[in-house]
Amino acid sequence: MSALRVALLGCGTVGSAVAQQLIERGPVLAERIGRPVELAGVAVRDGSRERDVPGVGQQLFTEDAEGLVAEADLVVELMGGTEATGDLVRSVLARGIGVVTANKQLLAARGPELHAVAAESGAPLRYEAAVAAAIPVLRVVRESLAGDEIETILGVLNGSTNYVLDTVDHSGVAFDHAVAEAGQLGYLEADPTEDLEGIDSAAKILILARLAWGCDLTLEDVQTTGITGLTDEDFANARGTGSVIKLVASARRAGHGRDASYELAVQPVALDRTHPLAGLRGGGNGVVIDTVSAGTLQLFGAGAGGPQTASAVLGDLVEVARAAAATRR
Amino acid sequence: MSALRVALLGCGTVGSAVAQQLIERGPVLAERIGRPVELAGVAVRDGSRERDVPGVGQQLFTEDAEGLVAEADLVVELMGGTEATGDLVRSVLARGIGVVTANKQLLAARGPELHAVAAESGAPLRYEAAVAAAIPVLRVVRESLAGDEIETILGVLNGSTNYVLDTVDHSGVAFDHAVAEAGQLGYLEADPTEDLEGIDSAAKILILARLAWGCDLTLEDVQTTGITGLTDEDFANARGTGSVIKLVASARRAGHGRDASYELAVQPVALDRTHPLAGLRGGGNGVVIDTVSAGTLQLFGAGAGGPQTASAVLGDLVEVARAAAATRR
Repeated sequence: MSALRVALLGCGTVGSAVAQQLIERGPVLAERIGRPVELAGVAVRDGSRERDVPGVGQQLFTEDAEGLVAEADLVVELMGGTEATGDLVRSVLARGIGVVTANKQLLAARGPELHAVAAESGAPLRYEAAVAAAIPVLRVVRESLAGDEIETILGVLNGSTNYVLDTVDHSGVAFDHAVAEAGQLGYLEADPTEDLEGIDSAAKILILARLAWGCDLTLEDVQTTGITGLTDEDFANARGTGSVIKLVASARRAGHGRDASYELAVQPVALDRTHPLAGLRGGGNGVVIDTVSAGTLQLFGAGAGGPQTASAVLGDLVEVARAAAATRR
Repeated sequence: MSALRVALLGCGTVGSAVAQQLIERGPVLAERIGRPVELAGVAVRDGSRERDVPGVGQQLFTEDAEGLVAEADLVVELMGGTEATGDLVRSVLARGIGVVTANKQLLAARGPELHAVAAESGAPLRYEAAVAAAIPVLRVVRESLAGDEIETILGVLNGSTNYVLDTVDHSGVAFDHAVAEAGQLGYLEADPTEDLEGIDSAAKILILARLAWGCDLTLEDVQTTGITGLTDEDFANARGTGSVIKLVASARRAGHGRDASYELAVQPVALDRTHPLAGLRGGGNGVVIDTVSAGTLQLFGAGAGGPQTASAVLGDLVEVARAAAATRR
């Protein structure tokens, strides 16, 4: 059987991990999918730059993303951006080609538009890696709880800020110092605004709420407060009351059916030490989902990292490939 | 569009919860599936018995399971048993009709046989509710981690024994007393052997290992020790060393590919209080999965209960129905 040709867009931390896992796990993936998987190419901004991704020859890198996706059976988008990237993803979906992405800001800004195009053409669009990296929360919300009704989702969805908050809590250093340390260790982006101001978490809780309730909300509907306004006094107060401050993303449903309304927020919250999210260390992520029938589900794992995020990308890739094989039967 | 006709086999704690949720959530489920869902009937052993399942009229109950499944689009098996039940499930799958079940002993005893029949006919076979009730661990192993490699699975997979062990640990009562109390509260079956001797947990870890690795193992391969041999001295020792005794089901892979071997066990283990499974209270279940790329995933939730288990059954039902709709496109 002919190989599944995968076009990879982007080769940063996650992209290079995906390329490497695709190559290394080739035989296992082929067995699970029922056909071989081939890395057709990797679109990058600067094709002349030497890259050291084990198993990926220099000839696979290209600056021609459009040309690359034109001959692919599946596109994995890991280059970020919402405008040009979104237009490219849209055109791929419109041609009926499946897309797997980890681009939370693209989904937050243009998710409904892209889903509409995908529904029209029948192309799958999957993005487990966009929220909480390897923690399989999207699949749980979309599939496992598809026979249930979700009432509340609470999450620590940003590993960088959790690293900062956990450092202050455990080592007792000043907040400013913890932010500086997180930056030096690579836990923060060059521009850390998206993490520290809660914008990253806002995109993620919005994606979760849309999947949970099919609701028509945008980023503006998420009441967002980051952690930059916190003071050493806030931390001292929390410690004094046996609490720990976490940046909590929350989505709550009130009412049912046509009367349903939704409340989405990202804010620092002083959690009691017994709260399931209170014990999250370092860059960990966690999600607590309350449902009508299943009760409370708790999911924990790594919230970032190349290999971890790549695992979620490949899980989506296998799902999309298996579904395509089932349809061809 | 014509309704999806669901045949329900069995009307115990889980069966009646499934029937009730199918009726109550009819409009929501119809929207998610893309066609109405109709409860075609409920097969029970004694059709003359009065049953009080809200929304389910007496005329829907029948003793003729074979007649009921013959006119169904999807069969939900919740009556238990492995011989006659297994033969009926097999014949349904052979006709290309999908089956959703929570019957862990059936899967443990005849899973490979039923999967082979299902693969031949193209019928879906799903059983999320068979392991850890509402905790979506099967879907995570089968789909979310389909691009990864699982190394170890550790779980507290039996709520009844966890209730007993937690009662001894927290209230300090004698072990015999806790077993008696669990029986009175309905946490144990009339014949509690399956729970207390670890047979229930053995079936569940076997199902997980087969999904994780596609390995050819049977119940005899699970080294199983229950909790009935524990003494008050064991509990005192554990308490003295800051540990807590849990009935832990484990599955470990050693080696790769053709050289891979698997070690499955169920046994009481004294866990350090900091272990993720150590804090499980009451009838709770938990699963810790270690993988090559995603790192460690932790999942917690209710391990039993009618509505909780029914939520997992309906999640499978929606998945199967959606896949059928996608194939028809």
